[in-house]
Amino acid sequence: MPGEFDLIERYFAPLAGPAGLGLKDDVAVLKPPPGKELLITKDLILESVHFRPDDPPETIAFKALAVNVSDCVAKGGDPKLYWLGLALPQSTDDQWLHAFSKGLQEAQDRFGCVIAGGDTTRSKTGLMVSLTLVGECLENGTVLRSGASAGDEVYVTGTLGDAALGFCCLQQGVEGYASLVSAYRRPVPPHTFGPRLTGLATASADISDGLIADARHIADTSGVQVVLYEDRLPISEEARRFLEDHPEHEEKVWSGGDDYQILFTASGKDRKAIAALAEATNIPVTRIGSVHKGQDVQLLDKSGQIVQVTYGGYRHF
Amino acid sequence: MPGEFDLIERYFAPLAGPAGLGLKDDVAVLKPPPGKELLITKDLILESVHFRPDDPPETIAFKALAVNVSDCVAKGGDPKLYWLGLALPQSTDDQWLHAFSKGLQEAQDRFGCVIAGGDTTRSKTGLMVSLTLVGECLENGTVLRSGASAGDEVYVTGTLGDAALGFCCLQQGVEGYASLVSAYRRPVPPHTFGPRLTGLATASADISDGLIADARHIADTSGVQVVLYEDRLPISEEARRFLEDHPEHEEKVWSGGDDYQILFTASGKDRKAIAALAEATNIPVTRIGSVHKGQDVQLLDKSGQIVQVTYGGYRHF
Repeated sequence: MPGEFDLIERYFAPLAGPAGLGLKDDVAVLKPPPGKELLITKDLILESVHFRPDDPPETIAFKALAVNVSDCVAKGGDPKLYWLGLALPQSTDDQWLHAFSKGLQEAQDRFGCVIAGGDTTRSKTGLMVSLTLVGECLENGTVLRSGASAGDEVYVTGTLGDAALGFCCLQQGVEGYASLVSAYRRPVPPHTFGPRLTGLATASADISDGLIADARHIADTSGVQVVLYEDRLPISEEARRFLEDHPEHEEKVWSGGDDYQILFTASGKDRKAIAALAEATNIPVTRIGSVHKGQDVQLLDKSGQIVQVTYGGYRHF
Repeated sequence: MPGEFDLIERYFAPLAGPAGLGLKDDVAVLKPPPGKELLITKDLILESVHFRPDDPPETIAFKALAVNVSDCVAKGGDPKLYWLGLALPQSTDDQWLHAFSKGLQEAQDRFGCVIAGGDTTRSKTGLMVSLTLVGECLENGTVLRSGASAGDEVYVTGTLGDAALGFCCLQQGVEGYASLVSAYRRPVPPHTFGPRLTGLATASADISDGLIADARHIADTSGVQVVLYEDRLPISEEARRFLEDHPEHEEKVWSGGDDYQILFTASGKDRKAIAALAEATNIPVTRIGSVHKGQDVQLLDKSGQIVQVTYGGYRHF
């Protein structure tokens, strides 16, 4: 394995833009353009917690950036620059680093951002990837969790449950569900969506802990009740096929987490604008619920009965 | 141990300022004031690599912020906001978290910055602290490694070798050197120095890998030779006392690392300005060398002989 500076030079410097000063110094310098401000988010991913030890290095890298892009976009941001903290176990070799940097390249090309700095160190234990992402948003344009009010409607991008079901497939050795596995290993948040949420969404969060858990974050912070309709939840063809064979995993759709889609609320008068947004970005958006006075989250089935949610989302502690 | 959200609420939200939105959302928003730009740096510290497993939680927290402040200040920055990524082993309890947050509070009070966000997760292995720091500097005021030129003089803040000798004391069970141990566990970079370097220092780096190794970063990036004089290196009273008993550790002064002092170059005409800066900040600054045409770093002894440097600084790989 190469030394720290060679490693940066060989694998990461080619990914850097001008703000990163070629990764030749200890800092990067930045300034938002006029009318914009900066959004900063930081998520770390750990072996055996956020990815499986046998996941390919390409997808570990891709996921590390994707989970941060997800946070940034949900807040109205346009991803721009990121800083990478890497703790590498003794076993890391050139082949691994090459694959990892390839996954980063792929992710940053996809999401439209570049590396600007970081820190690489030898870990005595497992692999850890800590990533800090800076995005730009319109001045005062951040979409918070706290803006939902009674009467608003609830939307979600993409489909739900794919990643959690993909994780099931990997854990149980079930084959034939490539797009579910890909959703787990290589999530693709709707990265062009961010700045378009500003002025339209009243509250927003990305779905990392699970639909119910993240809806609860919005409900708690906004001081409202969020009601979700089970039969409206968007489910991919492959997830539907998996659930026909494994109906016991159904609740993973709303509780599994790792979706990295955006859950947001908007005024009823903005239905047309939201349909236009979905069309312009080519990202499916589904209306899945409504906001009421009260508190907490209720999931209702087709007949209006409350679905008992036994598992409220991934908890680290 | 409390849940993730309780944990943030209880231990970290009290440390946050307005930019961190009370740590209630996934991002923080920031914008530099007019005439300033932002400097971002990220350093992670790992158990058994950057700190000892038996170091107190207070000092681990303090050090995590201090090493980033050091990077920021060396580049001309004034530390403002930081993001904390914490991977906590199973054994972490409330007492540990309380002590850790106390150490963070102490460090942020000392260095004049506040927490703005982060991510806390459960580690299946050791403790890992990843910190991203944002500082402000004057527009185009960043001091790079690359600006040294022949004829410049070389300066260093504070004293050298204390931390590396403190680590020796801990490793070998030598008692009676409290300030050396403190320099290792709880380094205090000259945090008020940053913006004052702008326009005065031609190149600058913080000393984390060791004086020789970090001087080599400046020499390589600037395309010059850096000559350092052994008898001018500033050594604390306690380090001098330790070295009298343990002369075999002498080279740790220039090769040990973990100093978190600033090494910088400046034009000969600025000697008075630098003396005034040292006086104004109450931070000792010592002239320890000069810059020449050529390459690499030479350490010369009193008689002008080249000191053989057998160990060029801490290497992670």
